[in-house]
Amino acid sequence: MVHADFLIEHATTLVTCAGPAPRRGAAQREIGALPDATVASFQGRIVFAGPADDAKRAVTATPDATRLEARGCTVLPGFVDPHTHVVYGGDRRDELRRRLAGATYAEIAAAGGGIVSTVRATREASEDTLAASMKTRLDEMLRQGTTTCEAKSGYGLTPESELKMLRVIARVAREHPMEISPTFLGAHEIPVEYRSRREEYVRQVIDEMIPAVKAEGLAEWCDVFCETGVFTPEESRRILEAGAAAGLRPRIHADELAASGGARVAAEVGARSADHVLFVDEQVAGAMAKAGVVATLLPIASFYLKLGRFAPARLFIESGVPVALATDINPGGGLSASMPFAIALGCFAMNLTLEEAIVAATINAAYAIDRHDRVGSLEAGKQLDAVLIEGDPIDLIRIGAKTIRTVVKKGRVVHSV
Amino acid sequence: MVHADFLIEHATTLVTCAGPAPRRGAAQREIGALPDATVASFQGRIVFAGPADDAKRAVTATPDATRLEARGCTVLPGFVDPHTHVVYGGDRRDELRRRLAGATYAEIAAAGGGIVSTVRATREASEDTLAASMKTRLDEMLRQGTTTCEAKSGYGLTPESELKMLRVIARVAREHPMEISPTFLGAHEIPVEYRSRREEYVRQVIDEMIPAVKAEGLAEWCDVFCETGVFTPEESRRILEAGAAAGLRPRIHADELAASGGARVAAEVGARSADHVLFVDEQVAGAMAKAGVVATLLPIASFYLKLGRFAPARLFIESGVPVALATDINPGGGLSASMPFAIALGCFAMNLTLEEAIVAATINAAYAIDRHDRVGSLEAGKQLDAVLIEGDPIDLIRIGAKTIRTVVKKGRVVHSV
Repeated sequence: MVHADFLIEHATTLVTCAGPAPRRGAAQREIGALPDATVASFQGRIVFAGPADDAKRAVTATPDATRLEARGCTVLPGFVDPHTHVVYGGDRRDELRRRLAGATYAEIAAAGGGIVSTVRATREASEDTLAASMKTRLDEMLRQGTTTCEAKSGYGLTPESELKMLRVIARVAREHPMEISPTFLGAHEIPVEYRSRREEYVRQVIDEMIPAVKAEGLAEWCDVFCETGVFTPEESRRILEAGAAAGLRPRIHADELAASGGARVAAEVGARSADHVLFVDEQVAGAMAKAGVVATLLPIASFYLKLGRFAPARLFIESGVPVALATDINPGGGLSASMPFAIALGCFAMNLTLEEAIVAATINAAYAIDRHDRVGSLEAGKQLDAVLIEGDPIDLIRIGAKTIRTVVKKGRVVHSV
Repeated sequence: MVHADFLIEHATTLVTCAGPAPRRGAAQREIGALPDATVASFQGRIVFAGPADDAKRAVTATPDATRLEARGCTVLPGFVDPHTHVVYGGDRRDELRRRLAGATYAEIAAAGGGIVSTVRATREASEDTLAASMKTRLDEMLRQGTTTCEAKSGYGLTPESELKMLRVIARVAREHPMEISPTFLGAHEIPVEYRSRREEYVRQVIDEMIPAVKAEGLAEWCDVFCETGVFTPEESRRILEAGAAAGLRPRIHADELAASGGARVAAEVGARSADHVLFVDEQVAGAMAKAGVVATLLPIASFYLKLGRFAPARLFIESGVPVALATDINPGGGLSASMPFAIALGCFAMNLTLEEAIVAATINAAYAIDRHDRVGSLEAGKQLDAVLIEGDPIDLIRIGAKTIRTVVKKGRVVHSV
């Protein structure tokens, strides 16, 4: 007999995603769906996940336990969003409307728009302002079932403002139910004032920013935007290696707009994840598989940026690369913070099965930010982070239908309709 | 001074879409957006739509008037969904999961799935059962801002069961806030029992069903699925002409899977709308423009059926064809009843501007079902059907964000969060 102070009972379908992480190949379809099942926790930690009949014998509810009735519902692990730009100043809605009306990126940049405008607004914003808008975005993510996410700096591009962003993340992580894995992304872009002396900026990232981030213990990861016109593979390697030496583990924005060599760098430096990866062939996917790099796919970015293509998800699965999904919420084109939308695009634009897409949004996404020991599946010993959906797992991907009924973080209801 | 018993006041942006219908060419961008504006109605009919300052002088609220504060919000006309299959029996979720796992349509059909299974379930279902599930779907549509829709028969394919479907639509139209334009679609498919004698079925549609539908006054429109393997252009023309002679005006499912000639038939018979129209060239678009046929685009169907292409929206606009958007909610692959999702796909998959997509979902959609005299825009004399969105018009297309705050039908709140 175990004691439980929180129970989700009689789920019509309990999707546990239990088992080893990450999933590769055919194992990416194993979601461990159980009929008429119960999951229970004590002080936030799962003590039971299995058939409701067994729960009767195995679990004793404490007198003041919270009990959620889940008949007619599907219960899934809380979603993990392993790639977000959720901290930033300003707003670029107007630019989006202009882009939809046919303005080119060059025209928008010439009018002071694009990432440069976000950098300006972020540098100017106070920590309070950044924290408040970040919390609003996290609230929206929670309502859509995300209970753990990664969050990047990268709109400061000076030592002070990059640290400011990371301090905001650290503060919000203490104050908000969302669990956050912080990433230093000083190498998101060459700032305007360094365009003619890029090597100086690379050295500033390596010699000033990384040591400062390390000294304050503000990040788990070091990320670089490796792309033609941004950071070269060689610059990316130097930055990621310097980060790793300081205990900031590598991850990378790779091959989003062209085959720029980023995924190969990921394999060479042993990055945990290569993100975007639209332009990757069999050989590169093979190198990623061998090095244990996760392919974190961001189909929402392809959608809103009208890239006209999506990452080759099936190639990754067939090559033995673990696939994760993320939203890439950001001020430029990252209009949606919805992991269910990422899952739907995974299925309908990238030919994942529903099961592969669910694994990609839970246990593999947790692995992509090294949280798979705590979150990403519903099994004894892990945190009880869960989403209750009205109906079938398929109801998750009926875009626009308000099927999410309840979101649970560490055995506590954080959203309910 | 006019009296108002319902007011939406101080909208940060009031999108009126006021003006003539349908919109063609560049006029499809005219959404009439006003800052700090008020819209007011008396007994469901709009008496004022304009600057909040003018409203102070022009409008007197009755003592018990409902007043909605819309500061920070965008107010739009209620969406009109001019193509739905919202009445049906049974469920095909399992089939969808199998399709995502790689099953072909032929394999699913061989296992008794596909439209045949919906026809079987719809024939077996009682009117009560069909009405109840239809209402659940309409509730979901209302929550997503749709206040008027079209609804088709077409899963009965016998005189009795087609009439049963239309009676269900008529009954639900009386009992539910959604305003419904009913369509007879006996020619949705050749039923299994007539596969070897299709001409007999065509004659049954013409000689039995259409007169019966007319006699009971159950439909405004007659529709045909004109496509290779379903109804030929010649059969479609005969059915639509017979319908028109009985007062059921023509509309058509055309050129969804191949250039099958349906859009050309639409132009020849003077259909109000040709729907799907993925495979249409300049010449056919020109014929549609000349005949005044609306192109009703169903990008959600392309998305969920993974058709790999979308309708050539820009070609229609450039050819002077009015463009409307619809959801095509249906039991096969029509998983989303969300007009905001249709708008987002209009923008990001079909290169409409945000303004064109909004016009396509409101005033042009109203024209597509001949309701533009009453709905589709916010101007004096029309019904007050409206959607309140938190934030900017852009917030409408942030998929997954719960931005719809309130939905109003005939000057009455029908959904609110």
